[in-house]
Amino acid sequence: MSVTAPLGFRAAGVAAGIKDGGKRDVALVVNDGPSRAAAGVFTANRIKAAPVLWSQQVLRGGRLKAVVLNSGGANACTGPAGFADTHHTAEKVAELLGDSAGEVAVCSTGLIGERLPMDALLAGVESAAAQLSRDGGLAAADAIRTTDTVSKISFRRGEGGYMVGGMAKGAGMLAPGLATMLCVLTTDADLPADRLDAALRQATKVTFDRLDTDGCMSTNDTVLLMASGATGVTPDQDEFTAKVTEVCADLARQLLIDAEGATKAIAIEVVGAASEDDAVTVGRAVARSNLFKCAIHGEDPNWGRILAAVGTTDAVFEPDRVSVAVNGIWICRHGSVGDDRDKVDLRPRDVTVTIDLSAGPASATIHTTDLTAAYVHENSAYST
Amino acid sequence: MSVTAPLGFRAAGVAAGIKDGGKRDVALVVNDGPSRAAAGVFTANRIKAAPVLWSQQVLRGGRLKAVVLNSGGANACTGPAGFADTHHTAEKVAELLGDSAGEVAVCSTGLIGERLPMDALLAGVESAAAQLSRDGGLAAADAIRTTDTVSKISFRRGEGGYMVGGMAKGAGMLAPGLATMLCVLTTDADLPADRLDAALRQATKVTFDRLDTDGCMSTNDTVLLMASGATGVTPDQDEFTAKVTEVCADLARQLLIDAEGATKAIAIEVVGAASEDDAVTVGRAVARSNLFKCAIHGEDPNWGRILAAVGTTDAVFEPDRVSVAVNGIWICRHGSVGDDRDKVDLRPRDVTVTIDLSAGPASATIHTTDLTAAYVHENSAYST
Repeated sequence: MSVTAPLGFRAAGVAAGIKDGGKRDVALVVNDGPSRAAAGVFTANRIKAAPVLWSQQVLRGGRLKAVVLNSGGANACTGPAGFADTHHTAEKVAELLGDSAGEVAVCSTGLIGERLPMDALLAGVESAAAQLSRDGGLAAADAIRTTDTVSKISFRRGEGGYMVGGMAKGAGMLAPGLATMLCVLTTDADLPADRLDAALRQATKVTFDRLDTDGCMSTNDTVLLMASGATGVTPDQDEFTAKVTEVCADLARQLLIDAEGATKAIAIEVVGAASEDDAVTVGRAVARSNLFKCAIHGEDPNWGRILAAVGTTDAVFEPDRVSVAVNGIWICRHGSVGDDRDKVDLRPRDVTVTIDLSAGPASATIHTTDLTAAYVHENSAYST
Repeated sequence: MSVTAPLGFRAAGVAAGIKDGGKRDVALVVNDGPSRAAAGVFTANRIKAAPVLWSQQVLRGGRLKAVVLNSGGANACTGPAGFADTHHTAEKVAELLGDSAGEVAVCSTGLIGERLPMDALLAGVESAAAQLSRDGGLAAADAIRTTDTVSKISFRRGEGGYMVGGMAKGAGMLAPGLATMLCVLTTDADLPADRLDAALRQATKVTFDRLDTDGCMSTNDTVLLMASGATGVTPDQDEFTAKVTEVCADLARQLLIDAEGATKAIAIEVVGAASEDDAVTVGRAVARSNLFKCAIHGEDPNWGRILAAVGTTDAVFEPDRVSVAVNGIWICRHGSVGDDRDKVDLRPRDVTVTIDLSAGPASATIHTTDLTAAYVHENSAYST
């Protein structure tokens, strides 16, 4: 179902020869309206790929007719020529749809620092436009995969019968402070751009922004939300935000589970924080500790490595008041030895680390993975 | 030679049964004077081990008679009882030397969150005191090893005939913002505590503080500098600082080469920075990118991952003015594709990454290693 679950959207995914082996590598998602309100969030990385610079400009207008996406090349660090490539891609889509390039977003993913093969890409765009259909959501989700082993799609039905659908890609270079990957969300609710924007920012802040598999921030991350208004339903803002958040959380979970080389899905719950920012800061510091990630891979409830990571932050806490539970066993109490660590069962794939800072009422959860030899192998052998 | 290279110092290293397999695990270094001026720098981690809290207090007096070190246990996150253990250890040394516990520093390294076996440790201290000798520097350096595969020692002769010697341990959990490991430096120059302190801070700032193998900051890091004054030579401050810096740089290099699982020694030179702080910030961001470290392990000159890491910092730079060389080949020029990446030879163990921010005259070099399956294996199987 993916991005074509809501009414008013068509999509396609085709193999244009950008990637080897005849795999799908160009996706197109088109909004047939009647509305074309849209919002987007982008990487916080200061080194931004050409398609990010382009799409940020397009989204300022709050309207999107279509988004074209390619895997097999990030078109990042490619200079003015790379930006022109993105521009030409958008113009090609506009020409095929009889519309304006100024309302066509572009997303790219793959190796940084190489120009895209424009002949192949533009031919692919043409073929994708010819294959656009109400059933194209799955093919589109397939076409944006890089090292993803599976397509990531989701949808939820909202009150009054509108729908939110989505597709995402991302398996490495997942880190917070940004959207962390490519994601296109669609809805047939009827909402103006500013309300879409508010819902999207609120949703990504507690989902994609709290996913940190390897602490590495991409140059291409983009999350778009497009509304067709095809149902004519204008939902309550909170209810709509909750639905968008559900779809984002579902996609984030799929990204986490498929992260390169990971064998564990780790939730780091920080509670008792003086502020939500503190909770996020502490959770991220732990999520980025290679020693912690190795310990969980070895099924070792090594709370010393957790505390060592907490101690690098400027969050409000007293060292002798911090407690840590792993899978519900409080093995560190008040900064010192707690319950018997042999009681911790780390064999399941899902691992929950709870850190109580005893400093206030705020909390946040960061999601990460273990660090494995397979991650090293994949990222030593594969160029991204 | 190690810490006993300078006159006025005796040392010993013994096996007290804290570590398995009859390995040495307790070291003692004693200053026979006539001076006992001393300085120390400690971990910036807010979770500090008991011996760090103790030794920081001791060093406020600017004098050290002795330092006792143990491997096999960090005595971190052990609460008031762990602090009492450190206190008792210092008292035991003081009693054996007929001196004051207030001038005895304590260092511990090993697993966080477990009490030390005090009976074994105190018996070890007694036996170390009995074995103190002018030849004990090597045994002491051996006794502080954890996952270190070799002992790390160094010495340099200064103008006028004084000597600076040192020993260090550290193979994982090496990160900046602190001393990054245990290190004892000795000198037979005659200098007051404030001049030792200034020299030590200046030396560690450009050596140990710029070593970042895995981004993980320890709870126990301590670097001590003890002066016996036995030569009666009072060196020029700049000349002395240069000698201490040389010994620290030599030891830092030994730590880097022996870092867990590493196959590459990577120097990240940041030039053209607006400030030295900016250069350090950018160097650290790259040193902490797992994707970059995996690429170097795979001998892939993936400059896209370097730029992606640079882009996460708040350093002054324009994305389209940053250039990157790997082993002297400028594969990224002005934020875009540069010279042929196939010209980069990444087979040698030593790798130099040069990042030119084109933003000013400042520079700094951060030293790191590659990320390997062996690192993951060692840190999944071994508790620290």
